[in-house]
Amino acid sequence: MFIENINGPADVKKLNTEQLVVLAGEMRQALLSKLSKRGGHFGPNFGMVEATIAMHYVFESPKDKIVYDVSHQSYPHKMLTGRKDAFLYEDHYTDVSGYSNPHESEHDFFTIGHTSTSISLACGLAKARDLKNEQGNVIAVIGDGSLSGGEALEGLDFAKELQSNLIIVVNDNDMSIAENHGGLYSNLKLLRETNGQAECNLFKAMGLDYVYVNEGNNVEDLIAAFTKVKDSKVPVVVHINTQKGKGYEIAEKNKENWHYCAPFDIETGKAKFTDDSIDYSDVTVDYLLDKMKKDNRVVAITAATPTVMGFTEDKRREAGKQFVDVGIAEETAVALASGIAKNGGKPVFGVYSTFVQRTFDQISQDLCIDSNPATIVTFAGSVYGMNDVTHLGLQDIPMLSNIPNLVYIAPTTKEEYLAVLDWSIDQDKYPVAIKLPGGPMISDGKKVTKDFSKLNKYEVTEAGSNVAIIGLGTFYEMGKNAAKLIEEKTGVKPTVINPYYITGIDEDLLEKLKDNHSVVITLEDGILDGGFGEKIARFYGTSDMKVLNYGLKKEFLDRYDVQEVLLKNHLTPEQIAEDVMKIS
Amino acid sequence: MFIENINGPADVKKLNTEQLVVLAGEMRQALLSKLSKRGGHFGPNFGMVEATIAMHYVFESPKDKIVYDVSHQSYPHKMLTGRKDAFLYEDHYTDVSGYSNPHESEHDFFTIGHTSTSISLACGLAKARDLKNEQGNVIAVIGDGSLSGGEALEGLDFAKELQSNLIIVVNDNDMSIAENHGGLYSNLKLLRETNGQAECNLFKAMGLDYVYVNEGNNVEDLIAAFTKVKDSKVPVVVHINTQKGKGYEIAEKNKENWHYCAPFDIETGKAKFTDDSIDYSDVTVDYLLDKMKKDNRVVAITAATPTVMGFTEDKRREAGKQFVDVGIAEETAVALASGIAKNGGKPVFGVYSTFVQRTFDQISQDLCIDSNPATIVTFAGSVYGMNDVTHLGLQDIPMLSNIPNLVYIAPTTKEEYLAVLDWSIDQDKYPVAIKLPGGPMISDGKKVTKDFSKLNKYEVTEAGSNVAIIGLGTFYEMGKNAAKLIEEKTGVKPTVINPYYITGIDEDLLEKLKDNHSVVITLEDGILDGGFGEKIARFYGTSDMKVLNYGLKKEFLDRYDVQEVLLKNHLTPEQIAEDVMKIS
Repeated sequence: MFIENINGPADVKKLNTEQLVVLAGEMRQALLSKLSKRGGHFGPNFGMVEATIAMHYVFESPKDKIVYDVSHQSYPHKMLTGRKDAFLYEDHYTDVSGYSNPHESEHDFFTIGHTSTSISLACGLAKARDLKNEQGNVIAVIGDGSLSGGEALEGLDFAKELQSNLIIVVNDNDMSIAENHGGLYSNLKLLRETNGQAECNLFKAMGLDYVYVNEGNNVEDLIAAFTKVKDSKVPVVVHINTQKGKGYEIAEKNKENWHYCAPFDIETGKAKFTDDSIDYSDVTVDYLLDKMKKDNRVVAITAATPTVMGFTEDKRREAGKQFVDVGIAEETAVALASGIAKNGGKPVFGVYSTFVQRTFDQISQDLCIDSNPATIVTFAGSVYGMNDVTHLGLQDIPMLSNIPNLVYIAPTTKEEYLAVLDWSIDQDKYPVAIKLPGGPMISDGKKVTKDFSKLNKYEVTEAGSNVAIIGLGTFYEMGKNAAKLIEEKTGVKPTVINPYYITGIDEDLLEKLKDNHSVVITLEDGILDGGFGEKIARFYGTSDMKVLNYGLKKEFLDRYDVQEVLLKNHLTPEQIAEDVMKIS
Repeated sequence: MFIENINGPADVKKLNTEQLVVLAGEMRQALLSKLSKRGGHFGPNFGMVEATIAMHYVFESPKDKIVYDVSHQSYPHKMLTGRKDAFLYEDHYTDVSGYSNPHESEHDFFTIGHTSTSISLACGLAKARDLKNEQGNVIAVIGDGSLSGGEALEGLDFAKELQSNLIIVVNDNDMSIAENHGGLYSNLKLLRETNGQAECNLFKAMGLDYVYVNEGNNVEDLIAAFTKVKDSKVPVVVHINTQKGKGYEIAEKNKENWHYCAPFDIETGKAKFTDDSIDYSDVTVDYLLDKMKKDNRVVAITAATPTVMGFTEDKRREAGKQFVDVGIAEETAVALASGIAKNGGKPVFGVYSTFVQRTFDQISQDLCIDSNPATIVTFAGSVYGMNDVTHLGLQDIPMLSNIPNLVYIAPTTKEEYLAVLDWSIDQDKYPVAIKLPGGPMISDGKKVTKDFSKLNKYEVTEAGSNVAIIGLGTFYEMGKNAAKLIEEKTGVKPTVINPYYITGIDEDLLEKLKDNHSVVITLEDGILDGGFGEKIARFYGTSDMKVLNYGLKKEFLDRYDVQEVLLKNHLTPEQIAEDVMKIS
């Protein structure tokens, strides 16, 4: 096989066109084999095999620098830049991450996982090259819906200002994770249909040169196009028409489901492991569809990740105009929600914790200054969430909970979640965010009667003395378990509190705890700095109460083991009990 | 005068075209008079007089809803919607804010001050209208460079998805605050030059209908255009070619300087009060220009506010390609800086604290995961900064200081600032942000020898006992003054500490303080929640040390009096001394 002898781009350049086509087939076979066993981003990588080969054939990486947007399509790049073993040999599968990674290779320039960043980052590489009076090409590769993100469009607009070499490869497979949304995609369609000849051209309107490649999975055509733009003195867009999932029929036919895959059977495409457990996505879509039927003002909003709220294609159809996918455009999602709420609608924006990070200013300025009553639900904001360094959900507490006017609530069970969600949708006073717990969903069947409009009222779930444990969201259960251990060891039953509210403290309750408690423990599922526990520590700063804050250290974890991380941060009931014994 | 009888849009509709032209003149006269006395946004309002009249002539506000981007051009709108007195009569000048404000009028829908939000917010109003099966027009007015912002481009792309009424008025005066930057402006130029006829059209490429008005300061033409698009069933762009500062020759000739004005003499255009004091902007540009000459890798970056770093037009010319204005595109500014740093350049992004809010995810993901050594300088992040609710600089500590890997440093004097800046530019390990102090710049001439590469090492500037005061940035001086008072009252000299580092605590020093201190006081210029002091409170949570955190309450202040706010938050040396007496 050719792929076995590819140790870097130089080896790609030794092959002729026919051999490159064979190489592409070998790469797909390796991808198919690995992904069927381990899962990963499927469609984006299968579509980019030929373009990656062609780039490494034409350009001189790493002197020429390629930046992949999201970089979930960088598996073929890794295979051609000294990391083939991680795709060919099962023993080496875990040698590489699923994203570009400068720690792995000099051919990778950034650790990337969020969308829409490649053009602006590439502009930076190009600008530094120009400042230093150096030569070389800088290439940004962007596709899979990333173009609609604000940062990408800003970069596209700014690129012209460089007035020097920058090559933007637009990998157009007519898809985001789900279908594309936004007017610009009608222009991409027009360009595809006119073989790139239409006068009305988004990229030219941004002041950029433009080249179209209709056969975006044809190595020869791609080599010709890249050769043409190599060493261009001005920014140029190479628009390539590719097929997502190319080469695996089942994926070609169902692009949305095959954007990412779990381990599957190659013959049938069926997932090897099925998980029938009901999770917060299922609960959310069921609740919302029902609510929508009763109230036409209710509308669910996604920024290109509809299934996080459970909105699969059939459920989107069911919701009709009460479901909006803004495309990859989180900023617009928040502003849209604010506008809808202002005008009497009832918007619910469901978003991964890691992507809500894109909306700090929109939440602060567009939503919270006017206190418009929109609802935001953050998913996977937990140590149990995604564990790639680019997709951590550990910053939403410090990011959201310090914005004035926002009410951020952390339910601990399905029942609490639905009660908070229902209250939030129907109230008209506050912008509300809801932090879903991580780990397996807990459903205890308890009826929730709490009046959430009485802000910042914590709930004492187990009355005790001496030690009070305030367990937020995910970690409420851990708090209960720690309480049991402490009772066993000391004979004194601690008080256990479910605080619900992240954005404010229950001063009355905290004050009352002083009567018969000497230690307060806080637990939160996220970075401690700027978080929930520190507010409690501040409150007790001038009292004799001892305060112990538990949560995660401020750091970028990567592909971590949850239990190890919990242990390292003293986040086990045993460790907490031991710590308490030491100070009380 | 007509304007004296305009109590709402209905009164505008009673006038004929000739009378509307007279009305425009009267409005400009009133604006000129008020702005010459009080200052404010000049150019944007002078350019929008006719368009505002025409909108209120054609549409039925508030049933038809107009959303102004940035809303610094909403003075004419206020004059026509029941708030004329605030522009005609000096006694009423302060009745209105400088931005759209739902508390003032049912004709205002959002409190807006940041750029690029109008289209997405307007989409929200329109979507709610459609959900409720109501009628009416929704109009977004955007110009002055706002189009290049990510949120605006996202909104422009999303608009088509509405498939219903939305009118986007693009107020094209060929200017941002300074000159426009970005490729899209070459398309606007092409459209102006072809009377809107060019086939290559950004707005059409976004899937939108398009109407061009060449005489954007001609009431009749504007009325015709708005009448044409009224009740449109699909989103449509009305591109109007206006003149910034129209009607005041001095402003027409120097658009950048007249974007915003201080009180001035109408005859000469000269500012009534001159301020010759040197501030952090002057210091920054002087330092950077010098540094650039010595090192061609140094590059200053702005997102359309070049003068915050002191880069007036002549200084931008002097810097040449070592100065980059990305246009209103803060996200790209951060990503660009990261890319430059990655490739060996030395970028310095200067940004208002209130606008750095637009870049949480870029700082976290694009910059800090890879720890690229870029420098960000935040200006006006202080209670002494801008005091409109939309421009507060009180959130940068909670926003920035909890992002892993970022080193956020708060100098207290000019000398410390330059020392930190110089260190930051030349080091290659950390992404560094520098928080400039608010209030008058302090320059004490002291040589700063501190080694900033030893992270999180605080400096004891006055050794004492019992009480330790940690005064961050702006409030370091207040800490010193409080210490003096405490010494006077108790006879015991407190320890005073300049912490510098916001992003980490000096555990060794804090530990040592336990030896002979019983109270630690922290002072910070920003919202307390999620900030600096809470980290100190957490550190001492299990010790006997009493901790008092001073800073601002989490709230959206608006047009506040600094002294009142300080008093309310116990931020005077007297109050601090009193509080300390109570607990120690």
